[in-house]
Amino acid sequence: MSETVRTTVCGFGHVGRAFVRLVRHKRADVERRHGISLAVGAVVDLGGAAFREDTDLPLEGLARLSASGRPIESMPDFGRPGARALDVIRDVPADVLVEVTPTNLVDGEPGRSHMIAALDRGIDVVTANKGPLVVSPGELEAHAGGSGARLRISAATAAALPTLDVARLCAAGARILSIEGILNGTTNYILSRMDREGRSYEEALREAQDQGIAEADPSLDVDGLDTRSKLVLIASRLFERTLTLEDVDTVGITGITRAGIDDARRRDRVIKLIGSARLRGDELLLRVAPEALERSHPLAAVDFSEKGISFDTDTMGRITVTGGKSSPTGAAAALLKDIIHTRASALLQNA
Amino acid sequence: MSETVRTTVCGFGHVGRAFVRLVRHKRADVERRHGISLAVGAVVDLGGAAFREDTDLPLEGLARLSASGRPIESMPDFGRPGARALDVIRDVPADVLVEVTPTNLVDGEPGRSHMIAALDRGIDVVTANKGPLVVSPGELEAHAGGSGARLRISAATAAALPTLDVARLCAAGARILSIEGILNGTTNYILSRMDREGRSYEEALREAQDQGIAEADPSLDVDGLDTRSKLVLIASRLFERTLTLEDVDTVGITGITRAGIDDARRRDRVIKLIGSARLRGDELLLRVAPEALERSHPLAAVDFSEKGISFDTDTMGRITVTGGKSSPTGAAAALLKDIIHTRASALLQNA
Repeated sequence: MSETVRTTVCGFGHVGRAFVRLVRHKRADVERRHGISLAVGAVVDLGGAAFREDTDLPLEGLARLSASGRPIESMPDFGRPGARALDVIRDVPADVLVEVTPTNLVDGEPGRSHMIAALDRGIDVVTANKGPLVVSPGELEAHAGGSGARLRISAATAAALPTLDVARLCAAGARILSIEGILNGTTNYILSRMDREGRSYEEALREAQDQGIAEADPSLDVDGLDTRSKLVLIASRLFERTLTLEDVDTVGITGITRAGIDDARRRDRVIKLIGSARLRGDELLLRVAPEALERSHPLAAVDFSEKGISFDTDTMGRITVTGGKSSPTGAAAALLKDIIHTRASALLQNA
Repeated sequence: MSETVRTTVCGFGHVGRAFVRLVRHKRADVERRHGISLAVGAVVDLGGAAFREDTDLPLEGLARLSASGRPIESMPDFGRPGARALDVIRDVPADVLVEVTPTNLVDGEPGRSHMIAALDRGIDVVTANKGPLVVSPGELEAHAGGSGARLRISAATAAALPTLDVARLCAAGARILSIEGILNGTTNYILSRMDREGRSYEEALREAQDQGIAEADPSLDVDGLDTRSKLVLIASRLFERTLTLEDVDTVGITGITRAGIDDARRRDRVIKLIGSARLRGDELLLRVAPEALERSHPLAAVDFSEKGISFDTDTMGRITVTGGKSSPTGAAAALLKDIIHTRASALLQNA
């Protein structure tokens, strides 16, 4: 017996497209292992949607459309040009909303309204969208609490690199004393190119842009704002406090020079952009800043687009996790994991 | 409302003693966070037991006894000299058996009989004891399946370093393609002393013995047998196959010389004892052997008594976890985690 889990996918960019391909690829395996029968009931993006009242979306055709780059409303037999996300969330029955519209750090929209609409209807939400989570701390959680819907955010907190899960599941029962993380692949790529290949900051940034690793406007990454958002999401949950972006003392990497990198190297250190949270008594110190790590530090060897996070605990010592694919597929895999977690409590039960 | 979870602790060596201290230390926190009220109903060791029909063991007194090193049957008001483990498991009501008697790789006893007695009565088992798990693959799982009791083995699979949990929970939905692990702290300590401090194998082994890191008879560690046991436990679960110790091609570190270490160093490599499992088509290749890792390998910087494991996956890329305290407290924390997991499915539910 398997439970059908019908998703509405909101956002058909790289991650949304990767998610529907992943559903097609993983459907049989997830059913066999976890008793979950995945379906995509609707996909909606800025220009419209695809859905039908009488049937789920065909995964073959959806995967083809995803790979083609064409907009979702052009899907034969299913396309609905002009359909709006809030209407789709209201009108198309779903068990889970997969919210993957772009992160907006000003007011969190449109993701904020999408997620609230779903949660208020008792529809679970999994999301890669940091915006509403950091702009209105606690707001989505309150809506989830109100209806009993579930909200999971792995894809917004470093995606295929597990962060919250390691601390809350793998270290259940231990107390987290501090966190240090390399949470942004773009800045780590730039710093690694400078350290490993003697590039200047400007050269390394340009290379990252040429390779599609950095945006044309790289400020969200290089000013430390992406790292800050992830840190706030992780730390607020692990330390059980309501935190805002303003709680984090934030410095990016734009001031890092070759001379600084070389100086660190001479001291057998390597400069990394570190997001950290440390308990000092009852106070929680939150910081994003370049730090010169000793080469023996467990994050020192995390290079190029890789990410990593290290937790110091009271009873398990220090636990560090690194890696996780930085790609739309990696983010989609984190969304899928969160869907599985909400349904498959048997995962915790046996050896 | 909290659920009382009454444990019987079988084995009062370093790990059993650390566990009862941990219960006292963590009781309030586990109740607040997870709604689990932990109690110790009985402790039993070779010379006898401590329990009473009318009440749980007092955690203060138990912690004092634990720290003193005195045997469990000497506990005032509760001691039962000569009481036998199987009788205690049968007669003292319990929700969870914490089985931490020494690992026996010949016939798995006495842990095997203890765990079977508990599982057949529907008592959940958490254990640090690899013996019965690897000597009779699948046997304990069958007993658990028969009664619906739960069996969890984090403490037997590298303890405070999460291994199975990372693959099964943090990477749920991803397929594991291969595993590589530094699963034994003693051999890693010896190899690190040779690499970092120019010691010969014999010198490094002696230092490890002097520090209590290696046993007087170090063969279980240095011959790769401990690594092999952990590899079998991890790989059989992640690849869903019944595996035996004989399935693993095993070489230890006794043949490693300074010359070999130096040669690796010249090639910018470092020798580590690696337990690995790799899918080749349908075949699973299992191996324990010293390998010369490139310095950029995510396990290359795991030094001294630290452990680490790296999973290559289909959709999340490579995920590596390192650290975790190698100590009785670390093992006890893994046992506590497993108890929490069996009761707190809410852990998976929300952000």
